[in-house]
Parts: sequence; C-alpha cells; structure tokens
Amino acid sequence: MDRITLDTKARDRAARIGAAREALGARLTGKQVETDAIVDLLHAVLKPGDRVCLEGNNQKQADFLAKALVALDPARIHDLHMVQSVLALPEHLDVFERGIASQLDFSFSGPQGARLAKLLASGRVRIGAIHTYLELFSRYFVDLTPKVSLIAAHAADAQGNLYTGPNTEDTPAIVEATAFSGGLVIAQVNERVPDGTALPRVDVPADWVDFVVQAPTPNFIEPLFTRDPAQISEIQVLMAMMAIKGIYAEYGVQRLNHGIGFDTAAIELLLPTYGESLGLKGRICRHWALNPHPALIPAIEAGWVESIHSFGSELGMEDYIRARSDVFFTGPDGSLRSNRAFSQAAGHYACDLFIGSTLQMDLLGNSSTATLGRIAGFGGAPNMGADARGRRHASPAWLKAGEQARAHRSGAAATPRGRKLVVQMVETFREHMQPAFVEHLDAWELQRQAGMDLPPIMIYGDDVTHVLTEEGIANLLLCRDDEEREQAIRGVAGYTAVGLGRDRRAVERLRDRGVIRRPEDLGIDPRDATRNLLAARGMRDLVRASGGLYRPPKRFRNW
Amino acid sequence: MDRITLDTKARDRAARIGAAREALGARLTGKQVETDAIVDLLHAVLKPGDRVCLEGNNQKQADFLAKALVALDPARIHDLHMVQSVLALPEHLDVFERGIASQLDFSFSGPQGARLAKLLASGRVRIGAIHTYLELFSRYFVDLTPKVSLIAAHAADAQGNLYTGPNTEDTPAIVEATAFSGGLVIAQVNERVPDGTALPRVDVPADWVDFVVQAPTPNFIEPLFTRDPAQISEIQVLMAMMAIKGIYAEYGVQRLNHGIGFDTAAIELLLPTYGESLGLKGRICRHWALNPHPALIPAIEAGWVESIHSFGSELGMEDYIRARSDVFFTGPDGSLRSNRAFSQAAGHYACDLFIGSTLQMDLLGNSSTATLGRIAGFGGAPNMGADARGRRHASPAWLKAGEQARAHRSGAAATPRGRKLVVQMVETFREHMQPAFVEHLDAWELQRQAGMDLPPIMIYGDDVTHVLTEEGIANLLLCRDDEEREQAIRGVAGYTAVGLGRDRRAVERLRDRGVIRRPEDLGIDPRDATRNLLAARGMRDLVRASGGLYRPPKRFRNW
Repeated sequence: MDRITLDTKARDRAARIGAAREALGARLTGKQVETDAIVDLLHAVLKPGDRVCLEGNNQKQADFLAKALVALDPARIHDLHMVQSVLALPEHLDVFERGIASQLDFSFSGPQGARLAKLLASGRVRIGAIHTYLELFSRYFVDLTPKVSLIAAHAADAQGNLYTGPNTEDTPAIVEATAFSGGLVIAQVNERVPDGTALPRVDVPADWVDFVVQAPTPNFIEPLFTRDPAQISEIQVLMAMMAIKGIYAEYGVQRLNHGIGFDTAAIELLLPTYGESLGLKGRICRHWALNPHPALIPAIEAGWVESIHSFGSELGMEDYIRARSDVFFTGPDGSLRSNRAFSQAAGHYACDLFIGSTLQMDLLGNSSTATLGRIAGFGGAPNMGADARGRRHASPAWLKAGEQARAHRSGAAATPRGRKLVVQMVETFREHMQPAFVEHLDAWELQRQAGMDLPPIMIYGDDVTHVLTEEGIANLLLCRDDEEREQAIRGVAGYTAVGLGRDRRAVERLRDRGVIRRPEDLGIDPRDATRNLLAARGMRDLVRASGGLYRPPKRFRNW
Repeated sequence: MDRITLDTKARDRAARIGAAREALGARLTGKQVETDAIVDLLHAVLKPGDRVCLEGNNQKQADFLAKALVALDPARIHDLHMVQSVLALPEHLDVFERGIASQLDFSFSGPQGARLAKLLASGRVRIGAIHTYLELFSRYFVDLTPKVSLIAAHAADAQGNLYTGPNTEDTPAIVEATAFSGGLVIAQVNERVPDGTALPRVDVPADWVDFVVQAPTPNFIEPLFTRDPAQISEIQVLMAMMAIKGIYAEYGVQRLNHGIGFDTAAIELLLPTYGESLGLKGRICRHWALNPHPALIPAIEAGWVESIHSFGSELGMEDYIRARSDVFFTGPDGSLRSNRAFSQAAGHYACDLFIGSTLQMDLLGNSSTATLGRIAGFGGAPNMGADARGRRHASPAWLKAGEQARAHRSGAAATPRGRKLVVQMVETFREHMQPAFVEHLDAWELQRQAGMDLPPIMIYGDDVTHVLTEEGIANLLLCRDDEEREQAIRGVAGYTAVGLGRDRRAVERLRDRGVIRRPEDLGIDPRDATRNLLAARGMRDLVRASGGLYRPPKRFRNW
C-alpha cells in the first residue's frame, strides 16, 4: 500500500545534523563540538526564518551561544523568530540589530527594555506578544515550538547528559518542546566530565540533546533576588508590618509567593521578629514558591519555613541550600533543583497569595511596569497575580477571600468559589518622586506607539484584592461598586494627585466599614516601625544567620 | 562553628534505603528489585502516615504496585495519605478499605466514583480535595509532596533509566517532585533491557529513580479516548455543524482542546467534509492540546492539523503516530512523548477554546459531572474550561470573545482583555431521559453529604461562554444581566423543565440580538445533518483513513 508519510520534520532534522557533520568534520565527535566551531555549527543547522529559543532565563544565560548567534552572517541566516523568556544580554538585541532575527516572542526584558522600545520603533523587531513565563512555555508545545534551542548547562558527560546545577530554570521546558518535535538542541556547558565519570546528577538526558559545546567562560548568572537589608527603609518596615498583621494573619496565609524587591524582603525579615511577637509562627508562611531569597534565611533558621520550591537559584546560596535540604528541593548531589515551569504552576495553583510591586496603578487597580520608552515585559506576575479560576481545592485564606468577593455579587458571580489574594504593595511615590498612582497608565500610550492589541497591563484591577501603601490597606474585595473601588484606591494613595483627589467623606465611610485600614486601625504604632525590627540589618547579618553558609557575591560585601 | 543542619529528610531517605537493603538482601541488586520481593520492599520503605503517590493516570496504571500496596500488613503500614491524579482500579480503593490508607487528594475517579462515595460515607476515607490535574501536580511542589512514589514505565536499563513509551503522562511531574525532595521513587516496568543495551529513549533519568521492579504482566492501559463513529447520532452531527459554523468559524479558532466523547468526535469527523465545504481548512483547528483521538485521523490526513500535543497516548495509535511525526510530539525512537503537565498548561494558556460536555447544568451555567451517590472528580476540565486570566498574548478569537464580554461591563471589568472560549456541548436529555438542564445541581446535595467546603462544580457558569444543544447556541458573553443569561440558557434547553419554563418573548428578543442562534439562523438545514457527513462512519473507516496504521483494540473491531 502506498502510505503517506508526514515526517518532513524528522527528515529535515536528519539533514541538518548531516550538514553539521559535513561542515565540522573532525571538530564534531559524537555530540561534542569544538569550541571554535560553534559559528560554523550554527551556520550549518540554522535556516532563515527558523524559530529559535536562545536560553535567556532571568538568571542563567546561554551567553556564549548568544555571542555566536550574533556572529552569524546575516546574508545566510536572517529573519529568525526568537522565542525566549528573557532578554537580558545586549546580544539578545544585537541579533535584531544585525538582521539575523526579526521577530520576537518573550516574557521579560527588564535590563533591555529601553533599547527594545527603540528597536521596535525603528522597525528592526516585530513583537508577537509579551507573555507571562508559563504562557510562553505553553506555546512552545502549541504554536511557538522552537526549531533550534540554544541552552546553557553546567556540565555534560561524554554521552551528552547534562547537569544544570542549581539553575535548571527554563531548561526542561525548552528542551522537551524542541527535542520531541523534530527540533535540535545545542547546549553550552562550563565543563565536560571525562568519559567514565558520572555527572553529579542528570538534569537533562543525553537523548534530548544534539550538540554540546564547552564555553570558554562559565555562563553568566545574575544574582537578581539579593536585597541588602541595609537599604530597607522604615517606611518599608511599616508596610511590612501591615502586610503581616493586616493580610497574612487576617487570612491565615500558609502558601505564598513573594515578588522581587525591598518591600517583600522587609516582610521576610520581620517574620522571626514582629511575626513571632504576634504568635504567628506555624500559622502563616509555611510553604513558598520562591527563589532562594537570602532575606528569608532568618525565618528559615527560626523554623518558620517548611518548604520552598524555586523558579531559579540565587548566587551565594549554594552551600546554605545544601545544608537546608529539608526546606529546599535538592538533587542527590545536594544542589538545588529549580524548575521555572513547575514553580510557576505552583505559584498559580498552589499558593493562596501573591504579593508584588508595580510602577504605576490606575484608579481601576490596573497596574503596569511598562512606562514610556521602555518595554519591560511581565515575567511571572500575570500568572501568579491572577485569580486561578481552575483551582478547586480549598484553604481558609482562599475561602475567606472568596466569601468577601461574593458578598456584593449576584447570579453566576455569586456561586460559592474561593479567591486568590493578590496584593499590590507600593509606596505612593517611587524614586524621583514619581507618583505610583496615576489617572492613566503609560501602558495606553505604549499600546498606541507599539501598535499592540491591548495595553501592556501586568496585573488587571479586577484580579487585585488588596492595595497596600504606607497610608494603609485598601481591601478591594469589600468594595460594592466601581465608585467605592476608586475611592478605596484614592484613600491609600497619599499625597499623589490621585490621593489628593479623594472624596474625604466617602473614604471615611470605607474606613468605618474596614475597607480601608490605617496602621492605627490594625493596632500598629508607626513609631514601632524601626529598622531594629529587621531580623538582619545588613548582608553580614544574613551571613551570620546562615551560620556562614551563605556567601554573598562580592558586590554585596562591604566588610 | 556549630552548624545547624536541616537535613532530616535526607537522613530519613538514606535510612529507608538501608532498611530496604537489609530486608531484601540478595533480592536487591543496585536499584533492581526481584519481582516477588515487592511487598517486602514496600514494608521496608513505607511508614505509617506517609504521603504516597500511586501512579494512576487516566490511562497508564502502576497496577502491579497497586496490588502490592493492597497486600501490605495494615498493622505495619496504615494511614497513608494517597495523592494521585486518578482512581481507576479497584485496588485504588482497596487500600482504604483495608485501612492501609486513610486520606486522599485526587483529580478524577470516574470508574470508581460510586464506590468512593460509599467509602466516604462509611468514614474509611477522608478526602482533602478534588483537584484539576495541573492543580494537583502544583501541590506536589508545595504542600502535597509525595514521600514515596510508585510509578509505571515501559522499560528500564541496568542503571535504572526509564523508558515510558508513548504514555509518559503524569510520570515526569510525580518523579520530579518526589526525587528532589528527599523522597523515594519506585518504578514497575514491563521489561528490562540487558546491560549494555540502550533504551529506545530515556524519559526519566536513573538518578531520579531508587528502585525498579519488573511486573509479571505489562501495565494496564485504558483506551479512554476511542469513540466508534458508528455510534454517532444525527443529532450529534447537527450539533457538530453548529459548533463548526457558529463558533469555530465565527471566532476563527486556531488552537483548541476537545473533551472526551461522541459530541466532539463528531466535530473532528466533520472537519474534512462539512468544514472543507465551508472553506475553513487552514482557518480553524490547526493546533491542538489533545490525546491522539482516532476520530481526528481523517482531518490529519486531509492536512487540517499542524500540531497536536498530548496529555497521554491512545492504544492502537502507536504506528500512526510514528508515521505522523510532523503532527505529533515524538521522541527519537518514533513513539509519542506525552506529558500531562505541559499539555494541561498548553490547554490553559495556549488554547483559545475548550469544548466539553457535562451531566448537569443549572440556570447560572454552572455545570458538574457529580451526581448523587457518585464522586467522579474533575480531570482537566476546570483548568482548561476556565478563563486564563494570566494570559497576555492575543489572538483574533480571544480578542473577539473579550470584546463581547466587556461590552456590557463597567469599571475594572471593562478594561480591554481577551477571553477564553469555553463551550458546553450537551444534548438537552442525556441517557435514560435525564435532563441535562436542572434548577439545582446535585453538586449541592453532594456537598452537604460529603461535608465539602464548596459544591463540586466542574466548570463555573461565569467561565462558560457558549452553551450548545440540539436547539441552538446560547452566547452567554452577549447577555447583559443575570436575567438574560438565565433566559439564554432556558432558550436552548429544549423540552426539559428548564427549557419549558422559558419566557418566550424574552427568548425571541435574545434570538433577534443573536444571543441565541438556531440552526436556521446559522444557515444550517437540520435535514443536512446526516451521518453521511461523517468522514468515517465506523472503526474500519478510521483504519482505512490511516492507511492501515491505526490498529484499534480488539473490543472496537467487529470485522
């Protein structure tokens, strides 16, 4: 019988591997590529228009492969479609400037946001969409499957098995989507272990990897989540006290995710002091979806934390993690096993609270980190800062939030259901006295400028449950209508124009009803909010709390 | 310095492995356990109260390990907390009846739902919660981490690397959560490959596996997604025509998930016939998150389908999948690589439409498959049938649904945002003339009986966008208030009491506005809805369409 075969992908894959063998000759042994052959390899296996994932996590970077990609001849390789979670390195944009790539789907571009906006304006890059991480990974299995992935691992063995060490991050999701769809996986590694030597552990099986190249220098990793307690202000201490007493204790939040920044670092550092004094140990903050924040060390040492699953790792925390394997997910080698896909899923479905910060919030509670001239992306916030409507298991925190949300609704919206707590924690003015509360988000103007389908809103107002500023907590769940909601936000917006525009009587009525709660309503005396409450007041305290196991990167050491 | 070490888990793990070595002696070689030593192994490594994941997927079953668990001495091993996605085998409940386990967190219990309800009533089992799959996997990394996992794979090599073959399903999520948290992974395999022989591919690295045992018989797999086209009715053909013309074409749905059943099988079989006649090829249904449904073979052969990522596999589809690697995710060995966690994420974040069926729907659009005396669970429906509020990438279908949803809203709810299409496709009467539309879901009574925190609602009414019956399509997005919504549902509820209770004038007004659309409103003549439209009218046609590659299980063969 004459059978149709639909295996063009498999044949294309074999042809590309054949082309690589031919181009590299003796510089390719099994899967092992000589370092100086990398550009030739990429020329051989890539084709114009390919969808390419260049591993840019928010920490670990496939920096050697990024440089090699930039070095390609745009006459041969052009119009690549880059599908990668983070744009962190200059090379991630150089490929567009050089015409090697022309299309982009991504999640986060913090450090490169301003340059990305310029490239977009000049027409050198077309942006498909800005995603939250898990959404981008999901599309890897549907309509954004990479043809070639360029990834980073710590070490490889002779067969091509990979050891990522603590920064596994995006790697498993990228590799699985590519390797099982007739794509090609190329890994840069810091070291090769000799034949016959076992890797400390296998994070990616050799079957899933096509080529391995040793990078001349170890891959770049950014210590993104380290915050020096010395820089935490007393306003942040006050806000952290309100978060703990007014939200965490109020709802009995056991499972949570903290965003990045000093605001949440302050909360972490108050657990073993202020939290302890309120008798909250064991009653809140037992399970976390979190990178290994050094600021959590004192709480861990005081026995507050039962488990932490991590998106990535954090430089300097290696030995501490190894000695705290009861708390962290670690491998048989003792080092962390992080996994951004699973940790994001955990943040979405298995946490009761997300608390993060933003640059701008409007009167509807919509917030965005996109400001004019910068396309920063979203990272994990949309996934974790959204109500998980597929969730079906109950917890006291989730049920209580759900009851509050339902109280003023009717019809389908009044059917009993829990609700994720989504807290936006912002000082009313951010640096350079820019107000955090605005009538209109810059996101709207950015949408017009960039021709986006929707404004780049990071967290939508109707997913936010609480707004926390130095002036107090606004519980949006208790608002009965849009007008109350607006006054609740104005009521904690301080001396910003939005705050000054409040209807004082309406705000007082909201306060009477507990929709707005000031520090004094919570029994918090702002004079108690001193840096003395912090369980660590500087990096050295964190090191001490860790029993010397935490080794901060040099830039955080001033002793 | 005197360092605190928090490594009780690691020490406990080592002690359990030591106990296994002592108990088994020569019956344990490396990681390889002799078949008849399995009960002794479980006695050695388990402790009362342990959290245990016994791999019960909705297809592949660790059936040998399930039997071994039932054979344990309840005086030694009792009060286990089972955390597994599916209760499919009698043994999954026998462990509770025998007192070996007492607590349960799960997702789906279809075949065992009635017995589970009885065990619950008798107090032999305490249910933590019923989850959707991805939610349960998420909790494996937060507060339901398994201490011991009992999994199933096709083959193992001498080192303990595992090959799952096409039914990878839950395995990677279970193993990762267990192996990296100081837990123990025990795998049953159908075969061992001799030392020095490579597995067809590695699905789980040996590092992540502690013990391997060869089962006396291959693990049980259920062909859950096979539907014989011969059993598709003409009413189902009519409904499928409405789905294609009134929803898929209307929104331009490119990426989707189909639930299980004859209703959606009819849609799959109409694509290359009716869909083709409407000129829809390439305009709808290109990317799928779907098990390898045999009913999709004709559409694949006609070139409709670009990609399918699968939760699990389907018996008999192995050779067909192998020859269609352009469409299916396959490994270097040619067989499917399924992965329930990633496919559920894809269904949530990268699909524009979910269409499924239900047993009961109320006037608010809430639906449930829980009926009195049966606790069936949810499976993947809550995750895929919920609006993905973390999603940020646009598609025409998502934007259009979002615009419709927003038209009658104000405040935060009116901020531009897309919307997932969630379609409930039900005949107004199901078997035994039970009405699908009811005033009150049985779920409410079930909640009272079982003392649940919330009624077991599978898909919430405010996540449903369309209700499709033989009478027409109700677009709930276009309803301006609760009253309209109720009449829209009554308006397609046919001769059920709910349907007969409609306000005829209100329903006609909804029809004038296009909220309700009858077949004739869609230009569909019900007389055209014959079985002749089906691209395959029986199993034999499917086999023929596959070029003989599809080999249905015996029970589906009648020739």
